[in-house]
Amino acid sequence: MEAIRWTGTTLHLLDQRALPSQRLWIECHDWTAVARAIENMVVRGAPAIAITAAYGMALAIHHRADRNIASAGLLAARPTAVNLRWALERIATIPDHQVETEAIRIHNEDQDICQSIGKYGSHLLHGGVITICNTGALATGGHGTALGMVRSALANQQSLHLYVLETRPYLQGARLTATECLADNIPFTLIADSMAAALMTKEDIRAVVVGCDRVAANGDTANKIGTYSLAVLAHHHKIPFYVAMPMSTLDLTTPTGADITIEERAPEELYRVGSTMIAPDETDVWNPAFDITPARLITGWVTETGFWAPPGQAPLDATHRNR
Amino acid sequence: MEAIRWTGTTLHLLDQRALPSQRLWIECHDWTAVARAIENMVVRGAPAIAITAAYGMALAIHHRADRNIASAGLLAARPTAVNLRWALERIATIPDHQVETEAIRIHNEDQDICQSIGKYGSHLLHGGVITICNTGALATGGHGTALGMVRSALANQQSLHLYVLETRPYLQGARLTATECLADNIPFTLIADSMAAALMTKEDIRAVVVGCDRVAANGDTANKIGTYSLAVLAHHHKIPFYVAMPMSTLDLTTPTGADITIEERAPEELYRVGSTMIAPDETDVWNPAFDITPARLITGWVTETGFWAPPGQAPLDATHRNR
Repeated sequence: MEAIRWTGTTLHLLDQRALPSQRLWIECHDWTAVARAIENMVVRGAPAIAITAAYGMALAIHHRADRNIASAGLLAARPTAVNLRWALERIATIPDHQVETEAIRIHNEDQDICQSIGKYGSHLLHGGVITICNTGALATGGHGTALGMVRSALANQQSLHLYVLETRPYLQGARLTATECLADNIPFTLIADSMAAALMTKEDIRAVVVGCDRVAANGDTANKIGTYSLAVLAHHHKIPFYVAMPMSTLDLTTPTGADITIEERAPEELYRVGSTMIAPDETDVWNPAFDITPARLITGWVTETGFWAPPGQAPLDATHRNR
Repeated sequence: MEAIRWTGTTLHLLDQRALPSQRLWIECHDWTAVARAIENMVVRGAPAIAITAAYGMALAIHHRADRNIASAGLLAARPTAVNLRWALERIATIPDHQVETEAIRIHNEDQDICQSIGKYGSHLLHGGVITICNTGALATGGHGTALGMVRSALANQQSLHLYVLETRPYLQGARLTATECLADNIPFTLIADSMAAALMTKEDIRAVVVGCDRVAANGDTANKIGTYSLAVLAHHHKIPFYVAMPMSTLDLTTPTGADITIEERAPEELYRVGSTMIAPDETDVWNPAFDITPARLITGWVTETGFWAPPGQAPLDATHRNR
C-alpha cells in the first residue's frame, strides 16, 4: 500500500479517513491544503506527516509562498509528532531550488529507515505479538516501523500472529492496520483495546511492539493514546514491550515525557463513529490523542541504527547503544 | 430511567440497542420473545436479565407453555450471567399460580438490593471515580449496583466526578451510562477504554468501581470485557478496585474464575458500529463479552449485606464478612 504520491506539482494523499470503505485520493496543490490534510488526519503517522510536510514546503516554493509562514503553518498542524519539526528544520537549511529534491530524499530515506528497523527488530518477534494504531506503509514512506518489524519477521519465515488493537477513538488499528494486513497476508486478529489484558492471560503473547510520535531524551515515549495502558499491562504480564523508533523521532531537546505537549482532539472524534452518535451529544468528553509511556516500562527501542537498551534516566544517546 | 415494565400480560422492554438515539419499547407476549430479547441484548446487565427471565416464566405459565422448556430456553440466552440461573432456579420452586407474583417480587427486591449496595458502598467514593459498562437503572430493577453506589454517594453530598469508559465493543458506557448520568445530573466525563491508564496519571482518581456477572467462590470475578484490564491498571497505580455484587451474583458452585464459561459474541458487534464498517469484513476478530478479574486484584466486594474484604483463596462466605 502507498499513501503519498508526488507528481512534481501536486501532492496526492490517500484519504485515510475514508478507509476501509473507500480509497479516495486528495490532491494538494499548495502548502495550505497540505497543512489542512495533516490537521484533519487525511494523513497520519509521525514519519508520513514529516514526508507530507516536506512536500508541502516544495509546494510553497513552487508557488513562491513565504517559506517562514508555510513552515510555521505546517508545524502547527499537529503539535505532538516531533518528526514534523525535524523535517521542517531539515528543509529550512536547503536552498529553494533543492527543496523538492530534499523532500523526495526524505521520502526515500524513510523507506530505507523502515527496512533497517525491520532488520534490527525482526528477531524479537515470535508467536503472539500485540500492536496498537497503524505503523505500516500508511504511516511511513513504506514498509512501516513496528509493522515493518512484523513484515521483516514474516519475510524471515518466523512464525507469528499479530493481534491488532482497534485503537479508539480514531480506529487506526481497525481501519488501517487491518486493511494493510489483509493486503499483505499478515496473519492477524482484531481486538478491542480493552481486550489486550484478557488476551495476555489466554494466548502465548511474546511481545508488544508499538511506534512512537516523540521520544524524550530520557526515553519516555509519546505515542497513540492506549500505548501507556498496553505498556502497564505488558509489564504486569512480564511481556517485552518494544518501541520502533526512527531516530528522527528522538527529541533530545525534550528532557522527559512531562515536557511533551499532548494534543487533545475534538470530542466528536470520540462520540461519533461514521454517522452514528454513540453517546448523547451533551456528553463531556476527554479526548487526548497521545499518552506518555515512561522509559522504565520499555524493554528497548528499535531504530535504524540498531537496538537500544533501556536508558534509565540517562540521555538516550550513542553511549547506550547495544546492538 | 426504567427499562422493564410488566403489565400483567405483556413485558415491555426498553430496547437498549437503540440508545442513545431512540427510546423504543419492545413488547414481549411470550417467553420465546423474552429469550430472544435477552440473547439479542435488548436488555442486558446481570440483575436486569434475571428480572426479565422471571417475567418470561410468568408469560410461559400464562400461555400454558412447558415450564422446563421455557426455563431451559431462557437459561441458554446468555451463558455467563449467573443471576439468570439464580432467578430461574428460584422460580422453579414456585407453583404456577404464584410465579407472576414471584417475578414481581424479584423485581422489587432488586431495587432494595441496589439501595443497600448504595448504602454500604457510598462512603468508598470521593474525588475521581472510574467505571466501566452500565451498572445503573438500565442494568437492574432500578438505582443500579456500581452506579447505585455513585448515586448514593451524591445523595450523601459527597463530592465526586465519574469517568465512564465507553466500553467497547458494545458501548454500554457511552450509550447507556452517559444517558443515565445526563438524566440524573451525575457529573461525568466519557473516555475511551484505552484512556483509563493515562487518566490515572493525570487526575486524582480515588477508586474504580464495577459491577459483575458472576463471582466464583474464591472471589474471581467475571464482568464486562475490559474489567480485568482496569483492575491491572488500578493495581499498578495503587487505586482501590471495588466490585458491586448482589449476592445472587455469587456462585459458590463455581470454585474459581477458570471454571467460568466466557461468552464470545459475533464479530459484527466489534467491526460494525451503527451502519459503519470500521474494519474490512474479511477481518478475523476475537470478541469475548467478559473477562475474569482474579480476586487478588480486588480491594473488596460491596453487597446488600455489607462490604466484603478480599477472601484470598478461601471461599467467599459469611466468615469473611467485614462490614
